Amino acid sequence: MLHDKLVVNAAGKLVPEEINGEKVIPYKGVGKYKPMGCKHAPPIPSCADYPANGDKRCPSLRDALIRSGLRDGMTISTHHHLRDGDFVANAVFDIAQELGIKGLRWFPSASFPCNAHLIPYLEDGTIDWIEGSMNGPLGEFTSKGKMKKTAILRSHGGRVQAIQDGEVKIDIAVMAAPSSDVFGNANGLTGPSATGVLGYAEMDVQYAEKVILVTDNLVPFPCLPMQIAGNFVDFVVVTEKLGEADRIISGTTQITRSPDRLIIAELAARFCEVTGIIYDGCVIQAGAGGISLAIAEYIKTILQRNQWRIRVGFGGSTQYMTQMLETGLMEYILDGQVFDTEAVRSLNENRKHQSFSVFNAYNYHSKGNLTSMIDVVTLGATEIDVNFNGNVVTHSDGVILHGIGGWQNCLFAKNTIVALPLFRNRIPVIVDEVTTLCGPGELIDVIVTERGIAINPLRSDLIEKAKDSGLPLKTIRELKEEAEAICGKPDKPKFTDRVVAAVKWVDGTVLDVIRQVAD
Amino acid sequence: MLHDKLVVNAAGKLVPEEINGEKVIPYKGVGKYKPMGCKHAPPIPSCADYPANGDKRCPSLRDALIRSGLRDGMTISTHHHLRDGDFVANAVFDIAQELGIKGLRWFPSASFPCNAHLIPYLEDGTIDWIEGSMNGPLGEFTSKGKMKKTAILRSHGGRVQAIQDGEVKIDIAVMAAPSSDVFGNANGLTGPSATGVLGYAEMDVQYAEKVILVTDNLVPFPCLPMQIAGNFVDFVVVTEKLGEADRIISGTTQITRSPDRLIIAELAARFCEVTGIIYDGCVIQAGAGGISLAIAEYIKTILQRNQWRIRVGFGGSTQYMTQMLETGLMEYILDGQVFDTEAVRSLNENRKHQSFSVFNAYNYHSKGNLTSMIDVVTLGATEIDVNFNGNVVTHSDGVILHGIGGWQNCLFAKNTIVALPLFRNRIPVIVDEVTTLCGPGELIDVIVTERGIAINPLRSDLIEKAKDSGLPLKTIRELKEEAEAICGKPDKPKFTDRVVAAVKWVDGTVLDVIRQVAD
Repeated sequence: MLHDKLVVNAAGKLVPEEINGEKVIPYKGVGKYKPMGCKHAPPIPSCADYPANGDKRCPSLRDALIRSGLRDGMTISTHHHLRDGDFVANAVFDIAQELGIKGLRWFPSASFPCNAHLIPYLEDGTIDWIEGSMNGPLGEFTSKGKMKKTAILRSHGGRVQAIQDGEVKIDIAVMAAPSSDVFGNANGLTGPSATGVLGYAEMDVQYAEKVILVTDNLVPFPCLPMQIAGNFVDFVVVTEKLGEADRIISGTTQITRSPDRLIIAELAARFCEVTGIIYDGCVIQAGAGGISLAIAEYIKTILQRNQWRIRVGFGGSTQYMTQMLETGLMEYILDGQVFDTEAVRSLNENRKHQSFSVFNAYNYHSKGNLTSMIDVVTLGATEIDVNFNGNVVTHSDGVILHGIGGWQNCLFAKNTIVALPLFRNRIPVIVDEVTTLCGPGELIDVIVTERGIAINPLRSDLIEKAKDSGLPLKTIRELKEEAEAICGKPDKPKFTDRVVAAVKWVDGTVLDVIRQVAD
Repeated sequence: MLHDKLVVNAAGKLVPEEINGEKVIPYKGVGKYKPMGCKHAPPIPSCADYPANGDKRCPSLRDALIRSGLRDGMTISTHHHLRDGDFVANAVFDIAQELGIKGLRWFPSASFPCNAHLIPYLEDGTIDWIEGSMNGPLGEFTSKGKMKKTAILRSHGGRVQAIQDGEVKIDIAVMAAPSSDVFGNANGLTGPSATGVLGYAEMDVQYAEKVILVTDNLVPFPCLPMQIAGNFVDFVVVTEKLGEADRIISGTTQITRSPDRLIIAELAARFCEVTGIIYDGCVIQAGAGGISLAIAEYIKTILQRNQWRIRVGFGGSTQYMTQMLETGLMEYILDGQVFDTEAVRSLNENRKHQSFSVFNAYNYHSKGNLTSMIDVVTLGATEIDVNFNGNVVTHSDGVILHGIGGWQNCLFAKNTIVALPLFRNRIPVIVDEVTTLCGPGELIDVIVTERGIAINPLRSDLIEKAKDSGLPLKTIRELKEEAEAICGKPDKPKFTDRVVAAVKWVDGTVLDVIRQVAD
């Protein structure tokens, strides 16, 4: 896509007003864009068109796709609960290619390196473009300008918003179900490909025109609990294997052992204590990254010392969270995805470990988000700039590295801490201007590095509370200069004029674009 | 409403093509009407319009109604989980009347005698009409032609269908919540007005333009489990008392002690055994009426004798079901409403006792219904005719007695048994033609009375299986004649020409009408 007519949005970024032939709205500022329309209205089905005995099985995925009316130009959605072990999304496009279907849009909740399998289909025109987080090879493919149309990157919440608002109309949702009955009641709790929860499937199932469930663990009716209700399902396909179990979910999640990263984690936890961000009854979102897990371990010590407990920990959940739950340091876990086998076990056994939909936490176009009531989230970033703006999708070389995930959505927490090393591979992480704007600086409160903590000047309350703490407080510019003094000022990535991807904000507006990297 | 232009529908009933100024579709036969449109699409909200701290409390219900834009002609929905102890629905209309609002439509999931409180508002024009099951005084009021507009009676599933399809657009849903946090995450599990589940609130909350939660038990964020997600809620009102606890839920449900009814129950249970309707792993819907409970007790004996267990019992749940769950005779309870305190306790404690939405079992405009997979349901009726048609809404005197509830929806079970005494107060229950058609005879399989069992001729399989059982099998005409020999042929009720209510079928078409009773 070469854009003749780009406009400057409220973040000062040049963005298009049309992408892939559809009108889009430039970013207007946090909370400034007000949607005027109505939610997407899928067709009304009738029980009369479904078997009375409830048996919706189809002999194969191929058969189910044909019966769902698969044809050129359709939008196919999948979820990412099978992570890097996913066989299902790849199988859909193997079949589409065999059937000679062209021009599809793939709308995954995220992609993984295993989906590099789809590159030939992006090359031969089976798939025209991807809208969804891209990890690794697909990101590189896109950044090199090889995708036919323009990719759109959204947060997890933004994806839900796009489905709800009819911005993306899903023709066929193909949902991997670790356990399902013949009617399509399904969950992720058991079976050889157990993923724990199916929080990313809910919206697809409710709004897609046709829904195909693929399972490798058919259970007697009814499959309980119904994380997916069969009332939304058209076809059930029983297959041998949904994916590689050991790549779907890790046996155990691990805390970082890097001394620098442990320092970052300790500083972040101490910051939370001295500023009163954590307290008895607080609500936190703990990530599953190495630093986030380490922060949670330091916070655990603080809780124990003060005899406090966390009211709710929002997942993605890990063994570290379930231990806190079981030892009484955490009262509840609310879980949108599960990262290790211990967390799957806990979800199956513990009533205080509950699954919920991404919708409830992250959809900006709902009547409030749980996220804004979370006391503290700790996030990572590929870059932060001197205005506290954040980048999570491109690397300093300009190449798309991974998706946004829940990152944008989490910025709405009461306190947002970005914890990251001051440089990676001798490339400073704090820059003058982020390569790609993913999150406006006004929503990022604190930057914690191994060499100091920078508090956003907008948060004078936190500056006041931290001032006599003995913590290494610095300005963001001081941190940047310190990194550059060690590593030198990094080269800026070189791009062509061609826009290869757009980054949407949580309200569906276009926050920034990503251009093709120059050779 | 006086109808000049009535048409004959597929059941041979004269029905209007327009009710209260809206076009309606005459009944076309079971599974014959195919909806062509799209689901209702409520406006897209934005988090930007809701408080970031999540606190949606309003000082009063009056304030919340005003802020929701209450005005003349609106549709107000309430649910019936507070049953005959409900203060909330009545309070809404007290306020509307004080504010001088006129011409409202009340859209409850059911009404109870306590709602006779609303009769003055139906008289003074605050409320123009009711669409929803009517119990007792309101039914009588309607039958006497005193309601300004035409009432519409729907099944529980039909109500869900009407909301989903946009047939009834709810302006303001006022939902009583036994426990809620300030954000509007809510459930019915605890608090002084605990109702167990809130299965009848889900659709209102999702599709209404404005949602007000009223609670007498504000709990710390987050209220878990979230039977209602705060993401759908506009305002939270904290009040002293939602209702009279002892009329919300009974302390204990009781099995009938009537010898005749015990005979009916025993015959029904024996019929299920000899015909193989109940078996190891079967799925049943047990009602909470006296006869249904007695049937369940006889079935229990059969299970014990055969060492069988029920795979799932669908609620409304009672102490009798929770006992079966706890003694291993039932593997799961799936619950849309809870009838006694023991069932509330079980729902709180037992992971195998799960709540679910009416939507999942009963919405005919979904991709299949759980109901059609239930092996057997036992229902009551006010009348059954010689063609096996059923009536549940009017008494033999023609007066509206109660609502349809889940009765129509349950007819789709694999085996539908109507168990009822052959006469009540010396009025035969089996008639030539039902006063009001609520369910087509083709869906009613077996009539069990204390004087014999009549199997629908369409079910030749059941006739074959039961023929050598020693059970008192009779034709439906034999049963009718037997009753008339004892009681005499009953007088037909007398009606004026005026249509006071319409009975909708599960697909939203008009199955029959109810006329004003003659003085």
